[in-house]
Amino acid sequence: MEMPDKMIFYLGPRGSFSHEVAEALGQEVKPERSISAIFQKVVETDQRGVVPIENSIEGPVNETLDGLFIHDDVYITRSIDFPIEIFLASKAEIKNIERVYSHPHAIAEAREFLEKMDNIEVISTVSTSEAADLASRDDKGAALCSKRAATEYELKHMVKIDPETPNITRFIVISRERNTDGSRHSIISIIPDEPGSLYDLIGVFSDRRINMNMIYSRPLRNNIWKYYFYIEFSGKFDVSLMESLKDRSIKLFYKGSFDPVQYKSQ
Amino acid sequence: MEMPDKMIFYLGPRGSFSHEVAEALGQEVKPERSISAIFQKVVETDQRGVVPIENSIEGPVNETLDGLFIHDDVYITRSIDFPIEIFLASKAEIKNIERVYSHPHAIAEAREFLEKMDNIEVISTVSTSEAADLASRDDKGAALCSKRAATEYELKHMVKIDPETPNITRFIVISRERNTDGSRHSIISIIPDEPGSLYDLIGVFSDRRINMNMIYSRPLRNNIWKYYFYIEFSGKFDVSLMESLKDRSIKLFYKGSFDPVQYKSQ
Repeated sequence: MEMPDKMIFYLGPRGSFSHEVAEALGQEVKPERSISAIFQKVVETDQRGVVPIENSIEGPVNETLDGLFIHDDVYITRSIDFPIEIFLASKAEIKNIERVYSHPHAIAEAREFLEKMDNIEVISTVSTSEAADLASRDDKGAALCSKRAATEYELKHMVKIDPETPNITRFIVISRERNTDGSRHSIISIIPDEPGSLYDLIGVFSDRRINMNMIYSRPLRNNIWKYYFYIEFSGKFDVSLMESLKDRSIKLFYKGSFDPVQYKSQ
Repeated sequence: MEMPDKMIFYLGPRGSFSHEVAEALGQEVKPERSISAIFQKVVETDQRGVVPIENSIEGPVNETLDGLFIHDDVYITRSIDFPIEIFLASKAEIKNIERVYSHPHAIAEAREFLEKMDNIEVISTVSTSEAADLASRDDKGAALCSKRAATEYELKHMVKIDPETPNITRFIVISRERNTDGSRHSIISIIPDEPGSLYDLIGVFSDRRINMNMIYSRPLRNNIWKYYFYIEFSGKFDVSLMESLKDRSIKLFYKGSFDPVQYKSQ
């Protein structure tokens, strides 16, 4: 398959939040149908991908953490905090709406708003961009979706939903190219199955007064009720730190360094 | 509302894995449409609920961990390991099948099996029991679902799917009644936001050679990129241990004790 020099794969369909983030990186973009498919494409084509890793309300994106674990030659090169803004969007005027389509997360976020609308049928969809697509073909339907998706599907009537809590999704750029510059670092560790082994591992950070930004555990699948740990930390990352982590792990994977940034629309 | 003396709420619809676990507890059972709704019912009616907390492949069930965090007066009283067995089930003979319905997790598990069937359309559903319902109304459709759901929806042709990895879901019984007997204990902690605070917390276990069975972090929502920790551990749980954990937490919730068991069908 012919590929342009620089291509970024994102989680489709068109109009998704991933799409928006990928476009802001300023290269040719291409949708994939799943996070696992994006990892696969990055490995096969040596191009890059954009995937969500964590949401401030829903927590970690398991498929992304497992992708980083399974593909030990794929690294994080960038991290982008993206504020999720949800709009109620429709072709018809809002007052004529009888049905609202959206992903369950967006529906949960708009619960108070929807309770104020009388006799509204709420329909779950796989993504907010699919919801926008459905609403564009329903004269009495609206979608809870991004401004970008509303524009894409020509839903002209829009009302912003005020979030109850901050709603930010952190996206990462993944690549087979390793980047070791940056203030924040990502590792994955499998520790021995004995009391005190997690304590010993994170003692490496504590001894150096290094801040762990996040630690998530994920099942090892083939080893029932055993886990690997995904950790991000900030500060100086040198050979001695790496060696100490290795000494306390059965397996240790370095997953790249980066400087987290906030999303800026173009 | 009139309630029987002992009622167990489970995650519906009928024929779900939760249904099967709830029935094995030998009391009247009633479906609810979400895990959050079950927590709500347990609080309102003083009855019990059955919810999944963790799967050996997919990891933690976030809605359950968040339910335990939000409702500080709801406790775990039992823990049941339930082996997930998936069947391809249909009204028609398997060779005449053109469509397969199921939840994405079950579809992922049956991937190899499905690849061997020619020209099969795969359709995602919200649950495996919904898939069974759809298959029962489609002469050329099959569902990937439990034996229980296949029986419930009269899908007589069944083939067991061999799992690639062990697939076990752990269910818990939740109640407002606190049980302090048992070999395994559950706590939730919010720790100070400074380097070394997680290290200090789990040092309490390490010092006593106590084994942590699981530790999951979940976002605090109102406090962006900050987390609470859900921990289960095995061994002696006394006042001194509890006080040590409290000393190292901003907030500490005891969530109950229990003896984990394996599911036995009736």
